Amino acid sequence: MSWKIARDSLKEIDLVNEESLFFLGNGYIGVRGNFEESYGRAVPTVRGTYLNAFHDVIDIPYGEKLFAFPETQQKMLNVIDTQTIHIYLGDEKEHFSIQEGEVKEYTRKLHMDEGKAERNIRWKSPLGKEIDVCFERMVSFVHRELFYIKVSVTPVNFNDVITIVSIMDGDVENFVDASDPRVGGGHAKLLHVQEADTIEESGFLRSRAESSGLEMACLSFHKGLDDKLVDISKEADDQRIIFTYQTQGRQEQPVEFSKWNIYVDDLRHSGELKQKAQRIRGQLETIDDFQLAKAQRKYLETFWERSDVEVDGDDDLQEGIRFNLYHLLQSAGRDKYSNITAKGLSGEGYEGHYFWDTEIYMVPVFLMTAPDLAKQLLIYRHSILDKARERAVEMGHRRGALFPWRTINGKECSSYFPAGTAQYHISADIAYSYIQYFLATRDESFLLDYGAEVLLETARLWVDMGHFRKDGTFAIDNVTGPDEYTCVVNNNYYTNSMAKYNLEWAYKIYQMIKEIDGNYFEILSERLNLWDKEVESFKRAAEAMYLPYDEELGIHAQDDTFLQKAVWDFENTPKEHYPLLLHYHPLTLYRYQVCKQADTVLSHFLLEDYADEETIHNSYNYYERVTTHDSSLSTCVFSMMASKLGDLEKGYQYFQGTTRLDLDNTHNNTKDGLHMANMGGTWMAIVYGFAGLRVKENGLHLDPKLPKQWNSYSFHIHYKGSPVKVKVTDEKVSLTLVEGEQVSLWVNGEEIQVKRNEQATLSY
Amino acid sequence: MSWKIARDSLKEIDLVNEESLFFLGNGYIGVRGNFEESYGRAVPTVRGTYLNAFHDVIDIPYGEKLFAFPETQQKMLNVIDTQTIHIYLGDEKEHFSIQEGEVKEYTRKLHMDEGKAERNIRWKSPLGKEIDVCFERMVSFVHRELFYIKVSVTPVNFNDVITIVSIMDGDVENFVDASDPRVGGGHAKLLHVQEADTIEESGFLRSRAESSGLEMACLSFHKGLDDKLVDISKEADDQRIIFTYQTQGRQEQPVEFSKWNIYVDDLRHSGELKQKAQRIRGQLETIDDFQLAKAQRKYLETFWERSDVEVDGDDDLQEGIRFNLYHLLQSAGRDKYSNITAKGLSGEGYEGHYFWDTEIYMVPVFLMTAPDLAKQLLIYRHSILDKARERAVEMGHRRGALFPWRTINGKECSSYFPAGTAQYHISADIAYSYIQYFLATRDESFLLDYGAEVLLETARLWVDMGHFRKDGTFAIDNVTGPDEYTCVVNNNYYTNSMAKYNLEWAYKIYQMIKEIDGNYFEILSERLNLWDKEVESFKRAAEAMYLPYDEELGIHAQDDTFLQKAVWDFENTPKEHYPLLLHYHPLTLYRYQVCKQADTVLSHFLLEDYADEETIHNSYNYYERVTTHDSSLSTCVFSMMASKLGDLEKGYQYFQGTTRLDLDNTHNNTKDGLHMANMGGTWMAIVYGFAGLRVKENGLHLDPKLPKQWNSYSFHIHYKGSPVKVKVTDEKVSLTLVEGEQVSLWVNGEEIQVKRNEQATLSY
Repeated sequence: MSWKIARDSLKEIDLVNEESLFFLGNGYIGVRGNFEESYGRAVPTVRGTYLNAFHDVIDIPYGEKLFAFPETQQKMLNVIDTQTIHIYLGDEKEHFSIQEGEVKEYTRKLHMDEGKAERNIRWKSPLGKEIDVCFERMVSFVHRELFYIKVSVTPVNFNDVITIVSIMDGDVENFVDASDPRVGGGHAKLLHVQEADTIEESGFLRSRAESSGLEMACLSFHKGLDDKLVDISKEADDQRIIFTYQTQGRQEQPVEFSKWNIYVDDLRHSGELKQKAQRIRGQLETIDDFQLAKAQRKYLETFWERSDVEVDGDDDLQEGIRFNLYHLLQSAGRDKYSNITAKGLSGEGYEGHYFWDTEIYMVPVFLMTAPDLAKQLLIYRHSILDKARERAVEMGHRRGALFPWRTINGKECSSYFPAGTAQYHISADIAYSYIQYFLATRDESFLLDYGAEVLLETARLWVDMGHFRKDGTFAIDNVTGPDEYTCVVNNNYYTNSMAKYNLEWAYKIYQMIKEIDGNYFEILSERLNLWDKEVESFKRAAEAMYLPYDEELGIHAQDDTFLQKAVWDFENTPKEHYPLLLHYHPLTLYRYQVCKQADTVLSHFLLEDYADEETIHNSYNYYERVTTHDSSLSTCVFSMMASKLGDLEKGYQYFQGTTRLDLDNTHNNTKDGLHMANMGGTWMAIVYGFAGLRVKENGLHLDPKLPKQWNSYSFHIHYKGSPVKVKVTDEKVSLTLVEGEQVSLWVNGEEIQVKRNEQATLSY
Repeated sequence: MSWKIARDSLKEIDLVNEESLFFLGNGYIGVRGNFEESYGRAVPTVRGTYLNAFHDVIDIPYGEKLFAFPETQQKMLNVIDTQTIHIYLGDEKEHFSIQEGEVKEYTRKLHMDEGKAERNIRWKSPLGKEIDVCFERMVSFVHRELFYIKVSVTPVNFNDVITIVSIMDGDVENFVDASDPRVGGGHAKLLHVQEADTIEESGFLRSRAESSGLEMACLSFHKGLDDKLVDISKEADDQRIIFTYQTQGRQEQPVEFSKWNIYVDDLRHSGELKQKAQRIRGQLETIDDFQLAKAQRKYLETFWERSDVEVDGDDDLQEGIRFNLYHLLQSAGRDKYSNITAKGLSGEGYEGHYFWDTEIYMVPVFLMTAPDLAKQLLIYRHSILDKARERAVEMGHRRGALFPWRTINGKECSSYFPAGTAQYHISADIAYSYIQYFLATRDESFLLDYGAEVLLETARLWVDMGHFRKDGTFAIDNVTGPDEYTCVVNNNYYTNSMAKYNLEWAYKIYQMIKEIDGNYFEILSERLNLWDKEVESFKRAAEAMYLPYDEELGIHAQDDTFLQKAVWDFENTPKEHYPLLLHYHPLTLYRYQVCKQADTVLSHFLLEDYADEETIHNSYNYYERVTTHDSSLSTCVFSMMASKLGDLEKGYQYFQGTTRLDLDNTHNNTKDGLHMANMGGTWMAIVYGFAGLRVKENGLHLDPKLPKQWNSYSFHIHYKGSPVKVKVTDEKVSLTLVEGEQVSLWVNGEEIQVKRNEQATLSY
């Protein structure tokens, strides 16, 4: 099956969406799929290069500002542009551009096995000169700081001078769309060039963010310049560096060179950025284009070997699934400063902030395909734990950690608290993720070094946040669950159940550490000033946790008052009024039973042991009727639950809607960036949905089913460091250890040993 | 007893507070009690002149803007300054100012019987020249557009030239304090001079508000200029007009003149503002200083005759009570464009917006002391009914009128909706006020012309807003009651009970109109497209209205979830953490049982027949324990209810806290303007509290009691156009008809005829 995404449209709307679809990244650098030569003035574009977590700080305005409303937020910056390369033909300097002349052939491809994007054009200039142009670009998975472009220009029907102008541009801004609240609304120009210099054959630009003071720099140089391509000039003004090369082009003889761009920033690169960039250049000098490409292929070969999903029976879905997994890989931060932004590194939507969807929709994917990346994502959360502690105090708590709803550097960035800070569940979501990580890896040292502190501090928050009522139940008031059409309520089922899990495991882990490492246990207790008595309160709160239940309907109520409200008048709501949040005031939405996304149903997925099957079934049916799926995080959950509950057909329908959301631009905003959580959700709909994976205390459980549209499918999971390939056919499931130690897995309740060189096959 | 408020402090903090305390107004113009000569640069001051409802429109910023969040708000503007008058002595031109030389005597007075403020100073210049200076100022109750200053300068120990510089200054700004959310946070300079001109002996300035385009103008001229005071120059630049006069001062011979300032604006004054101002000048030319003062005295004589409150036994409270009543009179708008701002016309706090407190805390005062002013306030609400209809649609309602939480021109100005737009009760509060007006005046034509439409449209809103539940009750979800520490809840008792009253009376009025005027009834029904069937739904909703009740506590619950929450930890809350809203995030406050102000208790006051006495008693006790009175609207309500429930001592304690709130600056923000609602509340604490007044369907009810600290007290009430003086002594209450037709009142359940020339006295 194909490893390529190919496109050949030159329509404006497609081009701007493809800027997201063809973005390249490695978790550190992200470069949108812009055209090197640009489109011309009038065409809408979001030209962008990003460094994960590299941000400025901007003021948040309020009409009425109340206590502890965040005063500032962070904003991921569009950084120095190195994409720009112009080609001029002849003495007339005809500029190669799709806006001029005639495009005779055109195709662009994303190679998900080779880790590169390729663009091929045959173009005829207004004066009749034809060329074949090929751009290949790569953001290296192996060399974190490298963005690479390879250019080839071949005269088809002429011999004449060819001029290449390659630019490093520091005069960049962020994209602004005042009309859409989901895109940044101002503060375009925040990054300012401090230094523009040419060193030997390279150019160097260093820029500083206006308020955060963070600096980033870029060093670019070209390879493959020989007698054919002569260096004409290198100019640096105060904003940009322009390299100009020239050659006498000859028919059918390609002119080729590559542009190597090294990005550094002072979050990661201590010391002087210029020296650091030069040192990296020194390392890269020893590598040629061929070696670079090979290393990239090798990296991806390993990745796919341990994580590929194959679907036999639907090529479009197959394409979508791999595409999603690939972009997740490109977007995941790999250091303690960064995580996965809501749009990955593909665009500026949500201003490069990290949300709860990392833990609930993306970490599960990495946990099963590349656990080391999952670990990195969790390390990031640990790195902002102190800020979460500070925020808890600011929010009036005596102790504990309250993680920010949206953030880059750990400080809360949400200015609309009912669908922001009130979503306390993010703290439990993060805890959940640590627990899942521990259960899937059994990595005790990570638990001690990182997990314990996060689990204990979030548990503390819940005890401080909630209260025991007269009837002995433990209640949590005044929070917002995942469903943002119902805000600031008491005893949100999702929040309470997740908090219960958080508290239970904090208690367990505390006892576990005592056993694993008595010394460390002493140190930790001392440092956190946390003792048995307080930890006993975790257990008590967990046991007494109130989980609202409606006897009549036989479902868990979303919160204390949800079921008492009137049901939204779906029948008389015109189609064009969706998504509702763009057409109704929050007070209107909050007044009705109407959900933006899975809420109670999501809890039933994450914590299926907290409710019996009948209740889960009833809840699914009830909430499905009042859910609009206005959030892209919704349908994948309904897909997984439909599969669980035996309605594979419906599970498949929901799944179909998720898989190609960005490829087909079904939400009409792919230009602002890809929907990362949905991408994770697609993978989960297969592995957790059709195949029924659950990570539980006693191990990994599968309950595989095969959608009737498919002949078979396979995927990978990781348990205790061992990747296992799972293949599901019409009646059978087979398990193959890809590498590592043998492990045992549960399939339909039966424990199966997966051994080396031995495929375990069983009927289901 | 005294009609004067006197002060003699020159401390900075006192001076800036006295700018509010000594403000002068007439419902149209408001002038703060600034010093004509100013204090000097370093002294904090809010120099201001306001025209009620004269505003600009400014953008409201949001970090995250959602659907139907108001994009702009109105802001009352500080307008052209005419207060400024400088006095210079001798050829050295020594400037008279309290910052220089020596103040040998100083006193300022507010004359509440004469309607003027007076300031007397004996001042010795640095070079030893002594003068007596007297400023008298008045904003005329008779001539709406007139602000008048009379100046007298008497040399005490010298003969030398005296120079007077009198200024009209168009270069004005609004006050800005970025640190306090209750004051405007920016947008200082919004009014720009369009025309500066001298016409004959007068100066004329016309200015335009930047965005609203509203214009205002001022024409100033001086009287009393004779051979003594010679006109030296009249200069107009593009911002101001400067009049300079000179005389040869002689020992003990006063130099006197008056400055007449005519304010007009194009909300009220159609046509060309200059012509209009000149025409008014023409009228005022015929009046001398003496006649002007006499007319003012006459106006106040009539007012006090019908509205004074006298307390025998506490001079400080007496001073406070009259002071409050006087400032209410000065602040009440008298046309359809204006109402009473939260700070009256005394300052810029809350940006000159009108809130619900007009109806609940101020209209009752006017209804009983000057019903014509109450009527004007209601007419204003009728004038913004169309905007309230539009807002209802914008907020997703199919019909009805939703009044804005804060506004000047009728458009919603609140940007924090949980304590803004969510306070739907304002629509019922306005309806309540119309009903009370009708019950106290029996003015049927007003009911037909104004009241009916407001009552019917607000009733419509409630039917659309609420819903019938399975158990047959009518519920109203997702609102905020008066208590702003508990936001966006279901079935707030206050809101539901007020809506019930609204609905009941809309139904009654509808039937009533049918009887009174069948023709008009047809026209109205047609116009509103409102028919019997819909009106029947008002009745059904009113009857089925759900009023949450807690069996165990025997109280009405503030809302569906209030009593389930934890009680605020008052014991461990340090004193300096009050008011809580300045020290805790809303999410923290909303999580606990803690009230900023009376909520359920307020409903028990307004609608005492909706609950039995025991429930009311229990509620009072319960809510008192969790109420912080962080709002200045709270203690007066608790005072009235304590009196009602027989705890006169506590009623008196609460009352004491309210009476001198501004005079003693107990809330530390009197500089931003007076607390108008509290001023109304003070009067209500006497008349509704100690004397037990209630306006009911069958008439006015009294239930008088005498606080033991007093020998007696008296006040006035109006019923069906007849003012009645009520005097309460230790054991007796006497009723005297001041003028008009005889009326009957209920005293302790007994109907009493109050006839001409016959005092009705009875024991209570």
